Amino acid sequence: MAYAADNLVIVGLGLIGGSLARALRASGFSRRFIGYGHREPSLRRGVELGVIDEFTLDLDEAIARADILVICTPTLTAARMLEQILPRLSGRAGGLVVTDVASVKGSLRDAAVAVVGTMPSQLVLAHPIAGSEHSGVEASSSDLFVAHRVILTPVTGNDPAAVNLVRAMWHSTGAEVVDMTVEQHDSVLAATSHLPHMLAYTLVDALSSSASSDEIFRCAAGGFRDFTRIASSDPVMWRDIALANKTALLEAIDLFSAHLARLRGAVRDEDADELLNTFERAKRARDEFAALLARRRQRKTP
Amino acid sequence: MAYAADNLVIVGLGLIGGSLARALRASGFSRRFIGYGHREPSLRRGVELGVIDEFTLDLDEAIARADILVICTPTLTAARMLEQILPRLSGRAGGLVVTDVASVKGSLRDAAVAVVGTMPSQLVLAHPIAGSEHSGVEASSSDLFVAHRVILTPVTGNDPAAVNLVRAMWHSTGAEVVDMTVEQHDSVLAATSHLPHMLAYTLVDALSSSASSDEIFRCAAGGFRDFTRIASSDPVMWRDIALANKTALLEAIDLFSAHLARLRGAVRDEDADELLNTFERAKRARDEFAALLARRRQRKTP
Repeated sequence: MAYAADNLVIVGLGLIGGSLARALRASGFSRRFIGYGHREPSLRRGVELGVIDEFTLDLDEAIARADILVICTPTLTAARMLEQILPRLSGRAGGLVVTDVASVKGSLRDAAVAVVGTMPSQLVLAHPIAGSEHSGVEASSSDLFVAHRVILTPVTGNDPAAVNLVRAMWHSTGAEVVDMTVEQHDSVLAATSHLPHMLAYTLVDALSSSASSDEIFRCAAGGFRDFTRIASSDPVMWRDIALANKTALLEAIDLFSAHLARLRGAVRDEDADELLNTFERAKRARDEFAALLARRRQRKTP
Repeated sequence: MAYAADNLVIVGLGLIGGSLARALRASGFSRRFIGYGHREPSLRRGVELGVIDEFTLDLDEAIARADILVICTPTLTAARMLEQILPRLSGRAGGLVVTDVASVKGSLRDAAVAVVGTMPSQLVLAHPIAGSEHSGVEASSSDLFVAHRVILTPVTGNDPAAVNLVRAMWHSTGAEVVDMTVEQHDSVLAATSHLPHMLAYTLVDALSSSASSDEIFRCAAGGFRDFTRIASSDPVMWRDIALANKTALLEAIDLFSAHLARLRGAVRDEDADELLNTFERAKRARDEFAALLARRRQRKTP
């Protein structure tokens, strides 16, 4: 059997890294999976679970052995990893491909350029739009990415072979791979993910600061539960994303605020037509989106 | 067996009205259930399903026979029903108790006062915080209200016996009955329900108006689906609620907007501590709320 890569190194073996290794083992993409990180217990657990074949705590060894190195840490940690990895690449023979899974791409590109002066041709940034309410290698699953989107953000200086290898890697997990510019990615993610998290956090924080917050939460029901579910997400991770994607997030907040101000005006003016038109437009768009997700789920479970 | 009421009239036999009749039949609260409305097919279906015993399309007959009359229509229709029902009460012997289930209480109180000059002693406004993504009498269920909150908003002029009868009615469905002033109710509901709906509609509408809306919706995932689920709600119903609860809704929007502006400032200033503090406070409040809901679900299914 011909493997696309001999040794694949996962940096940061959590839900995403573990699921990627499982998926790529199942599809036969790589011969050997090596974990690298600081937390020995979860790496050891990864070996026990058969997610990785072995692990190392030594970054130089990880880089020396890897054909592909996938940074699977959260956004700000990924930038710090790049700062350690990129200077070491010049000392290595052969074309190691480095990629990542972080939620923001512009900050990683900027970190790379800050370290080595240019975007390295072998560094291909990517972002799988998949996750779970559970975390850690224990929760990893070989079908996490099936029928999910993975956004690749190749840049002009990228080696086409490196881009193709990362694309092939994600294809072999069952994901749908799409290309975007770094700016497109950060703006789309700000809109669909980062902004909603900010709104959910803001709503819950605003209500819990209110004098009648006890009554408020006691009277809230199912719709409120769904709407605020993402406000139970990891605060550190979301602080980092808000910092890393500042520009696109500010734009998304401003777009939202402008629309909210317009709706507020319609409520104040009792403009029944404007209210109905807005709600009908939104319902139509939301129903279309739900149908699209349902079709995707169908592809996932045939 | 002693019934609390002989004849209970449901005005508007949908999910809520049908579930109330089923629950009250199961608990033995009333001897007989009579449907009133304009849509004969759903009333006929109610009889077939055993939800009501009979129905009438004649409001005068409904009023003449009722001991309790429960208006189970949406907010603005409920106001129009009050305008028809209240003038007819003076011509009726015996103490008919009128109540409702609408999402806004101030607008109904105002409608009643506008028609008869004062809040009638036999009109007790109430609001069960329960629902379902399904609608119509077909979806009705006798346990819809079990362990859910019902907010009663009695006023000074109310006959205590009428208030007690409505309270007993809701108790017998398995609901938890709490009293609030009309203003408290409308403000709590604006915060927990009306504002979140406005935010979800606004977000979806803002994103679908964007130039890259196709990419945006194609890249959205599970968190976005949950967050925007309520934007698939009935636009007419929400237009009516926004109009009926204008004052409290504007206050809720302004509270939210002030908090969003503060968060925007923290993103702009890259204030990591402020961001983390906000997200941690919100997560704590949201986790507490989720635990409260889980305890309530446990009471529902012992």
